[in-house]
Amino acid sequence: MTLTAFASTPEPPYYAVIFASQRGDTGALAYYEASQRMLDLAAQQAGFLGVETARGADGFGITVSYWESESAIAAWKNDAEHTEVRRHGRLEWYDHFEIRVAKVERAYAGPRADR
Amino acid sequence: MTLTAFASTPEPPYYAVIFASQRGDTGALAYYEASQRMLDLAAQQAGFLGVETARGADGFGITVSYWESESAIAAWKNDAEHTEVRRHGRLEWYDHFEIRVAKVERAYAGPRADR
Repeated sequence: MTLTAFASTPEPPYYAVIFASQRGDTGALAYYEASQRMLDLAAQQAGFLGVETARGADGFGITVSYWESESAIAAWKNDAEHTEVRRHGRLEWYDHFEIRVAKVERAYAGPRADR
Repeated sequence: MTLTAFASTPEPPYYAVIFASQRGDTGALAYYEASQRMLDLAAQQAGFLGVETARGADGFGITVSYWESESAIAAWKNDAEHTEVRRHGRLEWYDHFEIRVAKVERAYAGPRADR
């Protein structure tokens, strides 16, 4: 049983950045290294609350990062190293992606019999 | 290049239900069949906008479903067959899950050089 993949977030409200992406066939090692680096770097940002990520064998993945505020999201987007890695990702690693920024209004966990 | 995994959602605002879950080792076939059935059934609900899902080899997965309104989410939660399948999931299929309901405020897609 693995629980470390879950983000430990506070009571809502807070923000979620939902990043859905289709990987191409190129650059697996460089992509993996950059992904790990970005997770580490994000975790150091002010207002970062956590991240959850999953990718299937078909290369389709979803990463959700959680943030205290819109301004924390904006600061992370403007981080210089993150900006450079995103540029690389657009050019080389992703066939397509969709980003949605959402305000989390309620949250609960399970398994619990009353849900 | 596979694009069918992406949800084709309208302009925000709309709602997202972010379901992060850790599968256990049991019931792979029954789980798969129930998952497919729930995706089909959700797609028939009023106010359903789309769904994106990914699960890695470690059994950790994220499914995000998109809805027009909170009331559409509530109606789906109260659907009788869905309720029964959730009960089954809590008992047999999931070691843990986290559900977050969020209001999508902005969205964009890529790759695009100006993002």
